[in-house]
Amino acid sequence: MKLVFEDFEPGRSFALGPVAVTAQEIIEFATEFDPQPMHMDEMAGRASILGGLAASGWHTSALFMRMMAYGFLLNSHSQGAPGIDVMEWKKPVLAGDTLSGRSTVLESRAMRSRPGIGIARFKHEVHNQHGHLVCYCENWIMFSMRDTVEINP
Amino acid sequence: MKLVFEDFEPGRSFALGPVAVTAQEIIEFATEFDPQPMHMDEMAGRASILGGLAASGWHTSALFMRMMAYGFLLNSHSQGAPGIDVMEWKKPVLAGDTLSGRSTVLESRAMRSRPGIGIARFKHEVHNQHGHLVCYCENWIMFSMRDTVEINP
Repeated sequence: MKLVFEDFEPGRSFALGPVAVTAQEIIEFATEFDPQPMHMDEMAGRASILGGLAASGWHTSALFMRMMAYGFLLNSHSQGAPGIDVMEWKKPVLAGDTLSGRSTVLESRAMRSRPGIGIARFKHEVHNQHGHLVCYCENWIMFSMRDTVEINP
Repeated sequence: MKLVFEDFEPGRSFALGPVAVTAQEIIEFATEFDPQPMHMDEMAGRASILGGLAASGWHTSALFMRMMAYGFLLNSHSQGAPGIDVMEWKKPVLAGDTLSGRSTVLESRAMRSRPGIGIARFKHEVHNQHGHLVCYCENWIMFSMRDTVEINP
């Protein structure tokens, strides 16, 4: 039975990752979406305030999304997210780093605008292999309620 | 001469895009980073509240990043961004959509913590081909100041 809205009680948390970040992936993502020198070239990264070949913040965010998908979303009746309230790229994610994290429910409520769907606010924390917080995020995610799922499984 | 911090005066704006979004790109991004059914399958998308094969919000954000890169960042002495203050996925981005947008400087100031670098707050608006706002974002972006660039070009 996949998780429904009612399962996302405040305080419940889900482990994310681990996921390894390679130089090749950093360069490939940057080439497509964020072709700034510090995300595509080791020497340019070292010369920048990032201190090395560093993932685009959007790449870190996309990797965090993958960690969330496999951490709990694919095992849920998720209906997507309306956006991001906070996204802080706290420290550079460098080639060779391994990321892991945790998503924690902060609050939840039924949606007035969408019958049968509830929405939960999460804080998400992603750390590197040194235990440093590299990414902090807060957002709302929508889930189908139990009654809706039992009618339309 | 690339843009330096001093060029990002409040009120100045930069056109973004256009960029076309294909079904194949939507599915490829989702397969790697956000493998939820509504981002990978037309029928699942139609059955969801998104109403069709819809790009992951993170894909929309990454496309917006690409539009910013070619719109002004690659022509600047950007030093990256510390994060995102607001990211609202206002409407689904569907296969076949064409996105365009505008980034506008809201305020700017020198950074006390990083001599020679200034930071500017932007609002970013991305529209689809129907003129509907699909993505709204606010964030701060760092740029080298003119004096720093002239010393270390």
